[in-house]
Amino acid sequence: MTEEKNYKLLPHIDSPADLRKLDVRELPLLCDELRHDIIHELSVNPGHLASSLGVVELTVALHYVFDTPYDRIVWDVGHQAYGHKILTGRRDRFCTNRKLGGLKPFPFPSESEYDTFCCGHASNSVSAALGMAVAARLHGENRKVVAVIGDGAMSGGLAFEGINNAAGIPNNMLVILNDNNMSIDDSVGGMSEYLLKLNTNTTYNNLRYRASKKLFDWGLLNEKRRKSIIRFNNSLKSMLTHQQNMFEGMDIRYFGPADGHDVIELVRVLRIIKDMRGPKLLHVHTVKGRGYAPAEENATVWHAPGRFDEESGKRLDSKPKSPCPPKFQEVFGQTLLELAKENEQIVGVTPAMPTGCSMNIMMHELPKRVFDVGIAEGHAVTFSGGMAKDGLLPFCNIYSSFMQRAYDNIIHDVAIMKLNVVLCLDRAGLVGEDGPTHHGAFDLAFLRPIPNLTISSPYDERELRRLMFTAQQKDMGTFVIRYPRGRGSCVDWHCELEAVPVGKGRKLRDGDDVAVLSLGPIGTEVEKAISSLQEEMKNEELRMKNESNSSNEQSKIDSSFFIPHSSFDEVHSSFPSVAHYDMRFLKPIDEDILHEVGKKFRHVITVEDGVVSGGLGSAVLEFFADHGYQVDVERMGIPDAFVEHGTVAQLRAICKMDAESIKEKICEKLK
Amino acid sequence: MTEEKNYKLLPHIDSPADLRKLDVRELPLLCDELRHDIIHELSVNPGHLASSLGVVELTVALHYVFDTPYDRIVWDVGHQAYGHKILTGRRDRFCTNRKLGGLKPFPFPSESEYDTFCCGHASNSVSAALGMAVAARLHGENRKVVAVIGDGAMSGGLAFEGINNAAGIPNNMLVILNDNNMSIDDSVGGMSEYLLKLNTNTTYNNLRYRASKKLFDWGLLNEKRRKSIIRFNNSLKSMLTHQQNMFEGMDIRYFGPADGHDVIELVRVLRIIKDMRGPKLLHVHTVKGRGYAPAEENATVWHAPGRFDEESGKRLDSKPKSPCPPKFQEVFGQTLLELAKENEQIVGVTPAMPTGCSMNIMMHELPKRVFDVGIAEGHAVTFSGGMAKDGLLPFCNIYSSFMQRAYDNIIHDVAIMKLNVVLCLDRAGLVGEDGPTHHGAFDLAFLRPIPNLTISSPYDERELRRLMFTAQQKDMGTFVIRYPRGRGSCVDWHCELEAVPVGKGRKLRDGDDVAVLSLGPIGTEVEKAISSLQEEMKNEELRMKNESNSSNEQSKIDSSFFIPHSSFDEVHSSFPSVAHYDMRFLKPIDEDILHEVGKKFRHVITVEDGVVSGGLGSAVLEFFADHGYQVDVERMGIPDAFVEHGTVAQLRAICKMDAESIKEKICEKLK
Repeated sequence: MTEEKNYKLLPHIDSPADLRKLDVRELPLLCDELRHDIIHELSVNPGHLASSLGVVELTVALHYVFDTPYDRIVWDVGHQAYGHKILTGRRDRFCTNRKLGGLKPFPFPSESEYDTFCCGHASNSVSAALGMAVAARLHGENRKVVAVIGDGAMSGGLAFEGINNAAGIPNNMLVILNDNNMSIDDSVGGMSEYLLKLNTNTTYNNLRYRASKKLFDWGLLNEKRRKSIIRFNNSLKSMLTHQQNMFEGMDIRYFGPADGHDVIELVRVLRIIKDMRGPKLLHVHTVKGRGYAPAEENATVWHAPGRFDEESGKRLDSKPKSPCPPKFQEVFGQTLLELAKENEQIVGVTPAMPTGCSMNIMMHELPKRVFDVGIAEGHAVTFSGGMAKDGLLPFCNIYSSFMQRAYDNIIHDVAIMKLNVVLCLDRAGLVGEDGPTHHGAFDLAFLRPIPNLTISSPYDERELRRLMFTAQQKDMGTFVIRYPRGRGSCVDWHCELEAVPVGKGRKLRDGDDVAVLSLGPIGTEVEKAISSLQEEMKNEELRMKNESNSSNEQSKIDSSFFIPHSSFDEVHSSFPSVAHYDMRFLKPIDEDILHEVGKKFRHVITVEDGVVSGGLGSAVLEFFADHGYQVDVERMGIPDAFVEHGTVAQLRAICKMDAESIKEKICEKLK
Repeated sequence: MTEEKNYKLLPHIDSPADLRKLDVRELPLLCDELRHDIIHELSVNPGHLASSLGVVELTVALHYVFDTPYDRIVWDVGHQAYGHKILTGRRDRFCTNRKLGGLKPFPFPSESEYDTFCCGHASNSVSAALGMAVAARLHGENRKVVAVIGDGAMSGGLAFEGINNAAGIPNNMLVILNDNNMSIDDSVGGMSEYLLKLNTNTTYNNLRYRASKKLFDWGLLNEKRRKSIIRFNNSLKSMLTHQQNMFEGMDIRYFGPADGHDVIELVRVLRIIKDMRGPKLLHVHTVKGRGYAPAEENATVWHAPGRFDEESGKRLDSKPKSPCPPKFQEVFGQTLLELAKENEQIVGVTPAMPTGCSMNIMMHELPKRVFDVGIAEGHAVTFSGGMAKDGLLPFCNIYSSFMQRAYDNIIHDVAIMKLNVVLCLDRAGLVGEDGPTHHGAFDLAFLRPIPNLTISSPYDERELRRLMFTAQQKDMGTFVIRYPRGRGSCVDWHCELEAVPVGKGRKLRDGDDVAVLSLGPIGTEVEKAISSLQEEMKNEELRMKNESNSSNEQSKIDSSFFIPHSSFDEVHSSFPSVAHYDMRFLKPIDEDILHEVGKKFRHVITVEDGVVSGGLGSAVLEFFADHGYQVDVERMGIPDAFVEHGTVAQLRAICKMDAESIKEKICEKLK
């Protein structure tokens, strides 16, 4: 906060009440300061930049006009809400944003009374706000409720359901459509501006209100006719402006489009709309990254740019000096293209995440075979089902936590017909700083009960390639591949594409005393744990040998003192030893491995990057119970709680699923 | 099929190819015969009547104009598809519809090549059809794809996502909006008819096509301008007709509304639209129950009327002669109203199922506090979350299998904030004749991994009332109550409303050798099993005693011969005995019971009306594993497969979860 001395207004805004003391003419300056503060903070503490810059004026105008927190502002997708956080008493703590124990990545009610709802997943704001508007009405409160939703989130079916229902229930909700889609006409025509002015002109509206009230009183206007008039007005407007949208067919009064960066105009419009009865929609045009040239130029890159130099706009995410393993996403993207070139039936489907999941690689080379369907996970899966029904082979890539949106679609539109769809669950397991709404914690547990599914997770990048190759073979049915965010463990990942046997795991390490069964890249933590344990045991033995040597006969040196590391296992075969199996498939689970383990081991540890209720551990327990093995099974994974934000390493340690915790658990079992 | 001799045309239609041989002027007669056949069949073999009658003409017209099965007709919600079944080679087997081993309740690809997609849940047709249309395009096939969707299903977000995406991807799909909502203007104005005629006039369209092609060739028309023209046309049309809908804002060419009962006109319109390029929508008005007066008058009752007398229209579902237990639905509806009268914060939310779940009882008395949000399960839950956030207490009732649509909403919009929402899962477990898409098989397994949830299931109607009372107490968080379709076991159900302790089960029966843990009304099967077993053991002992008596000394009569039934347990305490616990809560699970059982029993059987992967059985296994109990646990429930249709009793026997199978399993364990 060293630069704060340059700010005239922002340092005095500790809550929206302070904001409302300002003269409206001071707001542009406040917006400048707020914008600068966001840019400055994000240059050192990475987060979501472009979206928050786009709504600076809207944020200021909303808190200025509405009586927050009594009035409710419901943000759709919280990464646009940094300005909101700074204005609502969290300026001092904003430097802790997204850090372990710091401000949450997205607004959340338990953090602030200004945060009205959970907003990690897109498209839920209208439904939630409608709920609040109805509650206000039933409680006889004159509370205003505003949902702020981006045009991207409007493609989500949930938002449509909310809007559709809003038109049918008595309420006074205001929906603000934050339209920052550069592909839509950016020239706001003169006629539409005129219409906005007319629609929000106080005299006109007073007149209109009085007239309609009279007509109601005289029995000349009923609810049906009122709706019909709204529709007629809307359609007249659409015709004149060539701007038409779905809201106009839905008995919701439509205003706009307005310039979302003219804070004074926004205040004027909001003040007028605020008290109007019935559901209404204000369409606002904004520019992502507004006010920071590099971000305006490439909003995709600057969505979450990492650290950057504020002056030059140079992004500081230094490339690793030594070769390091690639991200799973890169491997997915490259491999998908390789496969698609060989197999003509392969198509790609992504709900608005082509860059995030690297499907843009295939999109670039084979544009006709990749479909970005917008934020619409349910449709992405059902659409894939339709394509598969007629012979295509879709790779449908959806982040694990967003796949929760498509649960029924997987069951009803794909699995039940055994359709050949490859469901790629990116961001599976703990994702880190995006926190509880984004962890891919539940997928193993919610997918396992679904019949006909094959569910797999690769140990590393090479295995990802092999599983992708396997999944695209003829008639493999519905095939799930789940893998985490970020880098794996194979620098040399570009292996040959070859199939793995479905339902078969691998023994990574033989042993006699404890068996560890893991699924997915979390297995590398198991390997670290076992290696570290072996190292410790070796050192311990050397120490003991040394002690006994020195006590017995100082001069005799044991030849085992210099054993090479690789022969450690054989030499120390008398040591307790730990077997490690990479299960690779959750379903069908490898029964041969489980029989082997059930017969041989008294202690089994399962490790998975997912909730321990219902996932791999439960599958193993079920198998042992069904086959009469009396084995002590310890399940390690994400506990039965929403896990907060932090780095993946921090969270794994907290959840006791890091190498250290696994090692401790193994030691416990070896005792 | 005794009446077939009266049909002139229908008996000769064994496939749509036969249909297409008819002259178009013969179609009205065929429609009459088809309609009569449906009415006749359903009068003796119950099914969905009103919807299928409404689309008779549409069904005939579609199969007449389109080259099925090469062309694809995708029905949205299959209960409208009886005419389709009869015309596509299943006339002879139609009498087996919905019966075990007979025709499936909804079209399904494995049954017929004319059935293009799974259609048990609403709103998926557009997405699936778009997939097929894209597949046709990529494969270079000139295949036509038609989705037929009702206006009810159009409120589902998935349908919107599909339509929205259809506007953005090159395709030639036709969506038919089957509008049978009586509340919408039924007077189709002259202007709109004129517009339909104009839009589907061959000369006009040829001209239009040639003109636009020229403009394209000359570079005067590009994709963007073309879309703009569609929008302008649509908005002009809306303005003139006062009929506006969301499709018009979405670059989809809109035709209609057309009279859905004029088969000749439908054929004319479809023939013209068929070959037009780009996505298009035909709006058709139909009447549910059309052609059968009783059904036209009350389509809700005649949605699935049961057996009825064809002539008189009298429904034959005889009322039970002796008093019988009420349906869980009735108890839910009555109890909700009772609770709502006492607790002002209670509101009801249902996605288009007020009658099915009996929320109509509260709706009737407290209309302002019940919200039928349309077919929109995701919204129903998130909307409930919004209301709960501001102090209301929603009872959100959704059928178990449809709750799959709201999975993320439960996690992200309710549970994570610990909101006070009561999620009532009606139709949980096997539902019978509606088959695999409607069984509520997965809810226990998919809900259990979600943190913060309380998950319960009542043993009988009284327990349902108690759980509902418990759930509406202050700050109970997110509270799930799942219960099945149909009647329970309590004739005298109207008990006092009282709370049960959360997370506590009940011991229904003490025993020493085997413990059975059950959840929900399936527990009555367990009771039957144990009673029957006791009876057998008693008889066996008597037989043995008799034998030994007669062989030892014929005259000495053992006094135990005449023991009264009630004292059976005490007298025969040397018999193996079976304990039965009604767990009542899946989460939090009753740890006291599990400790008791873990310590006392070597054999445990779990019984649940849900999939055995991840539900109650798994929870018990996890607990025993976590606490070091070495117990043999046998899990009984729905297997890992989609269960077909049949009566609930038949399906329970097939799934080995009926009393007989439970008894066998207990005997096995007692050996």
